[in-house]
Amino acid sequence: MKVIVSLSGGMDSATVLAEAIARGRKVHTVGFTYGSKHNQYENKAATAIAAHYGVPFKLIDLSGIMAGFKSDLLLSGGDIPEGHYEATSMSRTVVPGRNTIFAAILLGEAQSIGAEEIWLGIHAGDHAIYPDCRPEWLIAMGRVMWEASEGKVGPMTPFLKTNKVGILKRGLELRVPYQLTRTCYKDQPISCGRCGSCQERLEAFRLNQVEDPILYESREALAK
Amino acid sequence: MKVIVSLSGGMDSATVLAEAIARGRKVHTVGFTYGSKHNQYENKAATAIAAHYGVPFKLIDLSGIMAGFKSDLLLSGGDIPEGHYEATSMSRTVVPGRNTIFAAILLGEAQSIGAEEIWLGIHAGDHAIYPDCRPEWLIAMGRVMWEASEGKVGPMTPFLKTNKVGILKRGLELRVPYQLTRTCYKDQPISCGRCGSCQERLEAFRLNQVEDPILYESREALAK
Repeated sequence: MKVIVSLSGGMDSATVLAEAIARGRKVHTVGFTYGSKHNQYENKAATAIAAHYGVPFKLIDLSGIMAGFKSDLLLSGGDIPEGHYEATSMSRTVVPGRNTIFAAILLGEAQSIGAEEIWLGIHAGDHAIYPDCRPEWLIAMGRVMWEASEGKVGPMTPFLKTNKVGILKRGLELRVPYQLTRTCYKDQPISCGRCGSCQERLEAFRLNQVEDPILYESREALAK
Repeated sequence: MKVIVSLSGGMDSATVLAEAIARGRKVHTVGFTYGSKHNQYENKAATAIAAHYGVPFKLIDLSGIMAGFKSDLLLSGGDIPEGHYEATSMSRTVVPGRNTIFAAILLGEAQSIGAEEIWLGIHAGDHAIYPDCRPEWLIAMGRVMWEASEGKVGPMTPFLKTNKVGILKRGLELRVPYQLTRTCYKDQPISCGRCGSCQERLEAFRLNQVEDPILYESREALAK
């Protein structure tokens, strides 16, 4: 079965890709450039991950469309907040409409190439901060996909009820090349280790008792 | 209340705009370029309609993203079918994902500018052919908007249960400048009068006993 995996270049979507391949899907991957501070680094990571698995990767440029949206995740916004990933300050990194736009474009792509599933890396650790990662959003978005495609395309979210710790556990079993992934939200080549995104990743590696293979400016755990 | 009206340049969205203004909304209009055969003509029409009402119009370019999608409505697809607008041949003009992509981007725009409603021109005459104009799609998409925006943004579809005849009736009361609108799907400046889109429009004017003020190659009614 042909499917599309939304591949950001982060560890969740890399694990989703490995899972889709493990379950025998014929995978096409798609990534997005949308004006985020870490876009160039995560796009590069996504390209490397797709190459590692030998699957096609298509990069879709939405920077002209989303660069003006209101969010500190974007180059046009304020600084990336530091601290715990479930802290309310992290809500400044929500990009309005982002996952809905991604899912909608993937729907059009899927129907155009005859793919039946859209695999998304949304997970339990995202629910507190990002409304467009919650089960309520997914149920509605899945319904949109089914209605718009007349039953031909639906979502797959293998980690909807799993947190980052559990995703990493599964990914380590699947030998996901985490050294190729990019998680830090900041506009810098070396990961900061202090933004919510880095903190969540470092915690997941710590709790899996494995060393994170990427470089950091700091590996210290920050308070909630 | 600030709202966004999706303005294609056709008669339905022009009437939706008039309705939103009549109901006292502070309107921003948004249109899309996406590689359809009639895009340059409808974008020009949308610009003129927005100017007529003195409301801001923003054109968003999706041609790089959707031009390769599979549809005869697009420049990359086959010929526009001629005949009745509910004929099955018209389903070749469905652009996969189109209205979901538009709605998703309008959601991001709305949240970014503080608009509370997204007004869409979907109507009863579209239900047979276009899955992403049906009430089932709208209910799901509305839910996506509410969930993703945490209750801040929702859809408005004043003509969901109205057909083209009823929309025109209301638009004539509101003095919509139909001479500025563009309906024909073909890549030509003068409307053909034979594609399903032209046929539906001509029928609506005939049944309202008003002459359509735009130019046509042919005004003849074709069989179902």
